Order: sequence, then C-alpha cells, then structure tokens
Amino acid sequence: MPVDVSRPIGVFDSGVGGLTVLRALHDELPHERFIYLGDTARLPYGTKSADTVVRYALQAADALVGRGIKALVVACNTASAAALPSMRDRYRDLPLIGVVEPGVEAAVTATRSGRIAVIGTEATVRGGAYQRAISRRRPDAIVTAVACQLFVALAEEGWTSGAVARTTAQRYLAPMFAPGVGSMSAAVADTLVLGCTHFPMLYAVIREVVGDAVTIVDSAATTARAARALLSERGLLRLDENQAQMSFLVTDGGARFAAIGARFLGCDIDLRAVELIDL
Amino acid sequence: MPVDVSRPIGVFDSGVGGLTVLRALHDELPHERFIYLGDTARLPYGTKSADTVVRYALQAADALVGRGIKALVVACNTASAAALPSMRDRYRDLPLIGVVEPGVEAAVTATRSGRIAVIGTEATVRGGAYQRAISRRRPDAIVTAVACQLFVALAEEGWTSGAVARTTAQRYLAPMFAPGVGSMSAAVADTLVLGCTHFPMLYAVIREVVGDAVTIVDSAATTARAARALLSERGLLRLDENQAQMSFLVTDGGARFAAIGARFLGCDIDLRAVELIDL
Repeated sequence: MPVDVSRPIGVFDSGVGGLTVLRALHDELPHERFIYLGDTARLPYGTKSADTVVRYALQAADALVGRGIKALVVACNTASAAALPSMRDRYRDLPLIGVVEPGVEAAVTATRSGRIAVIGTEATVRGGAYQRAISRRRPDAIVTAVACQLFVALAEEGWTSGAVARTTAQRYLAPMFAPGVGSMSAAVADTLVLGCTHFPMLYAVIREVVGDAVTIVDSAATTARAARALLSERGLLRLDENQAQMSFLVTDGGARFAAIGARFLGCDIDLRAVELIDL
Repeated sequence: MPVDVSRPIGVFDSGVGGLTVLRALHDELPHERFIYLGDTARLPYGTKSADTVVRYALQAADALVGRGIKALVVACNTASAAALPSMRDRYRDLPLIGVVEPGVEAAVTATRSGRIAVIGTEATVRGGAYQRAISRRRPDAIVTAVACQLFVALAEEGWTSGAVARTTAQRYLAPMFAPGVGSMSAAVADTLVLGCTHFPMLYAVIREVVGDAVTIVDSAATTARAARALLSERGLLRLDENQAQMSFLVTDGGARFAAIGARFLGCDIDLRAVELIDL
C-alpha cells in the first residue's frame, strides 16, 4: 500500500534547538506538513548518558509515529549520535534522517587539509559519533572535537552577539584555530562542523573568531537537503500546490517554547499550535 | 516513638547546585549523616513549569523518605519556591527546610534601604516566591528580581572567573546596580540575594560588579543555619562524637555528577558513594 504523501514529516529534538533544522526543512520542502516534537520537560539531552538518551528518543519517536508521520528527522545531534541505530531497528520502513551523517558528508567534502574541527554538546563530543563517522569516510582526517556547552545557554538566552558571546567563542575556539586565527597553517582545521542545532544561532560570532578561511558546516541546511533527497527517492514528496504547515508538541512549558522558539525558527510560533503531551 | 537521631538528613536538588548547600550543612552540622539526591536526569528544574517541578520534587522526596531520613533540606530554589507547600502537606511530621525562607530572612534583616535585588533561575523569578516572601516580612520593600540563566551554565562549566564570567555578570547585574556601581543611591539595592544554589560559585565576579557596599546573601549558609536551628529545636541533632558521612543518589550520569559536583562541594566525590536510581 503506498504511503499517503500528505502525511506529516516528524521532526524531533530535545527542545528548541531543532527548530533551526525545521526552519531549513521548511525552506527546502515548502509544501510539506511538519509536526515538531520538543522534549522540553527532559532537556537538555546533551549532558545525559547515552542509555537515557536512547530511551527518551524512542519514546519521542513512538509518539510521532503514533501521529502518522511519513518520515522522521532527528533534529538533535545528541539523539542522532546516540539513538539512530536503535531507532532504525524499531522502525525499519520509516525514512529516518539524523543530523550527524549529513554534516559529516559536507565536512569531508569541504576539507582540503583533512583537519576538521567539531563542536557540540558534552554528550555529542564524548560519544564520538562525529569523530567515527568522519574517520570512516576519510581515514586520514585529523578531527578535533570540543564541547561548547555554554553556546546552548547563550542561544536560549538570546545573547547571540555582544561581549559575552564573543568572549565565550574566543575561549572555546581560539585554542583550536590558533595561532593565526583563520590562517591556513597545517596545524589549524580548515573546516568547522556546528554539531549542535543551537550553534547556528551564534554563527556570526563563531565566524568572527575562526576567520573567513574556515568552512563552517551548519548541519541544519545539510540535513534538510538530505531529507529532501530521501523523500524524493522514496516517492514521498508532497505535491507543490500545497502550503507548508507546522504544528508543535512539547512535554513542558508551551509558552516558553513559543517565546524562545520563535528566535530559532525565525518566525512567530502561535501558542495555539503548541500541544502539551506526556511521553 | 522518638526519632533515631543517627538517621540521615536528606538533601534534594535537581542536580549539582545543591552541593553548595550540602557543603554549608556539613560545615554547620559536622556530625550528621547526609544523603543527597540530585535529579540529574531531569535537570534543570529552573526552566520547567511549576506543575512539573512539584511532581518531580514529590517523587524525589518519596525516594529520600523511603531511605529513612530524619529531616529534608530542599536545596533547590526552584523546588523550594514551587513545591514546599505540597511537600509539607505530604510529610506533616518531617522537618522540612527550603532555601527561600532563610535567604529572605537574611535579606530583610540586612537591608537598610528596603531595596532588595534577587537573582535566580527563570522559574524562580517567574514564580515570584522570593518577591512574595520579602513583601510579607517587609511590605515596604522594593524588590527587583532578574533571571540569570547563564550563571548556571558558567558554574557547571567551571568558568567562574575570567572574561566570560565577568562580562556576563556585568550584563545581568550592572543595570540593577547602575548608575554608580556599589553606590548607595536611593535607586540602587543595598542587598542582593543569590537565589540559585549555583550562584555562590560566581561570588567573586558578582562581588566585583555590585561593589563592596552591597550585602550579598548566600542562601546556602543561611539555610544550613536554619536547618541546625530546626534540628536542635526538635531534639534531632546527632551526638558530636560521630563523623559526618555523605552518600549520593543520582538519576543519571554518576561520573559527570562526581566530576562537576566536586567543584560545588569543595572536595572530591568518591564515585563508589554515588548510586544511580530511578524516580
């Protein structure tokens, strides 16, 4: 039985960060329906153990599958890194797109020197999924991964420019891109992967610190392109006379989600489109 | 039947922040046994809704009561502010100490101008518990409350000094203590309540920004004194030939808790004393 292409695409994140991915998905797939689940009661995933992240991610996926999605985008680096294999086991027929693989693909394509820097949450960096995925595709690559936990708080606080954001970016990134910031010396990465969906919010200060010569890979955009390719391949794209639609499920704090989320999504979130659920 | 005074004192927090309170309790009550519960799987409470915080706090209290505690210190401002009345309802005979009341008591005693500033998490500030408790004791007080969400991340990252901590403290606090930082003009608070257990970690930069003329109330120390007074009043103090003992329960990430927690507690946490539980 063919899948009904009018069914929504599920997008899952621990909170608001995945809205940067939803924004990119909406740009790339402007005729689809999206149902976004932010597990706001249990965020952040980035400091939790892998077992817990897997358990939470499967519960979230169950909830979205229960709503009849035709595909699932895991718009959370921590969950993509920790839980994608378990999710593939559980939903064998469901098109499933994580944020790690598309980002890695873009990074190994972009790098000339083979030196790639990855920044993410503690859990993403500790789990090593980016490091392993890069090594599989390019075994000679030299990967430096650094957890930039404070970037998450800065993005949520809306402090994406100014002295605090700049000094934070310097403290995290200057050691990786020193001595000559932006120089192409052999010791310095030429590609930086933003391995957390919050980090595109800080793009400008990150760019300022790493310099113009570094390719910055924003996994939101690369994930949206990967999602489009997979849907197209499976004949699941929605007809183009339709308008995009978005609805939202959260596990706590709908008002906070709508207020902070609007910055991440780049447009207002109508509180009436936000439904509170239990996982 | 008299309560066995050798039973432990329960200390509950959403994560590591309450360890600053445990440290103060240990200083004040050096002969007691302590059992600390950090709900690390579900932190932070500071961005969650009041209903969720109440539910989590009652589950945590149940777990500690199940371990036979003789008193419970709620070492979490968010939980104290949101859940203390529900906890008192549920455990009518258990001595119960929150962090809000002792901090408020110290603040209204310290202020001369009646202008008090309170900083805390989003949930604590939004809930208004400090503001109400101060007004009850001193109806003419003028209270300014500001959420300083980034201080939590800074304390956990260990960035308690340096440019990032300083610029963050300036951005949050300078508007409250301007124009003349530390001046005693009528418009400026003369007392600052650190309404989050993470914030004592940033005491030095906070002091630098607010100046020497402001009284800083650290609710860890005031809570420990209140706990001592209540235990003494109820005849529950442990005999002084005993050595203090500490054990820890966490809901996720014991290794991370021990590593980060050591900075908050001011001494090493033996990973063997950390037990993983489900709530």
